[in-house]
Amino acid sequence: MTDETKSFGIRQGEVAADLPPTFDASLYYIGRIRTPWKRREECPKNARESDAVCTIELDQRWAEGLKGVESCTHLVVLYWMDRSRRDLVLQAPRHYGEQRGTFALRSPARPNPIALSIVRLHRLEDAKLEVIGLDCLDGTPLLDLKPYFPSTDAVPDAVVGWHAARKR
Amino acid sequence: MTDETKSFGIRQGEVAADLPPTFDASLYYIGRIRTPWKRREECPKNARESDAVCTIELDQRWAEGLKGVESCTHLVVLYWMDRSRRDLVLQAPRHYGEQRGTFALRSPARPNPIALSIVRLHRLEDAKLEVIGLDCLDGTPLLDLKPYFPSTDAVPDAVVGWHAARKR
Repeated sequence: MTDETKSFGIRQGEVAADLPPTFDASLYYIGRIRTPWKRREECPKNARESDAVCTIELDQRWAEGLKGVESCTHLVVLYWMDRSRRDLVLQAPRHYGEQRGTFALRSPARPNPIALSIVRLHRLEDAKLEVIGLDCLDGTPLLDLKPYFPSTDAVPDAVVGWHAARKR
Repeated sequence: MTDETKSFGIRQGEVAADLPPTFDASLYYIGRIRTPWKRREECPKNARESDAVCTIELDQRWAEGLKGVESCTHLVVLYWMDRSRRDLVLQAPRHYGEQRGTFALRSPARPNPIALSIVRLHRLEDAKLEVIGLDCLDGTPLLDLKPYFPSTDAVPDAVVGWHAARKR
């Protein structure tokens, strides 16, 4: 497909795939994320830019699942970017300009718009977690919480080459 | 709920929630993960225990999305633990013994069985990625690939308190 065949709503340099005809698995929303940001333009460009305390409200159905979480300093948060298009394979983010593949970007637009943030646990009470390190819209659906293990999750010397080259 | 009311298939110390009546969102499998492990007992207990090179086979539909991925040393891999039960809130993993909440564990049994691994990219050719750092069953469905940014994803001094206490 070339840019000329793209439908309305795709920026120059973006390319969409045909979505598969059927889905393969399904998700439950297990809670909601409360943040100070009501519109996309208000969200910090990345989570390290903000010290805002956000609140994860877990549904009561799952509240017992938090036993032991209070002992974690950091958590992996998975959430659902429910307003994102899912067919883009090549994207040209405004702040980068250049065209790159969806899987080389953290853009919310992807076949399965699951976002991942590492957050610092600030406070846990009942089924509410106050955390630092989120940058999503208020009301974003929660999918999962996991303990962050530095032994397997922290790779301080990892490099995203295209991004490093950009900063030089 | 007490242990006495638990249905068949739950170990002592495990507690299940009633699953919600409906799903909220749906997923596409975007590829498959090829590993040397055909049965659960064969899988390494965690990915750092194995140097095995595994292959991620991305569907051709999404292949263009890999543009730029070759410049990444490490990737976030999200995949679907399609054989896991989804209703457990408290679990008693055999190797830990003690009962803990699902969200304090990396167990595949969780409301949305999305697993997360950080892998080292060994080789990328066409729509196949050879990576090091996976511990899942052969044939596991792939959900997403993301570039690993140490600036937001690496927290070397994070602590999982219950786990640290165990090792002392």
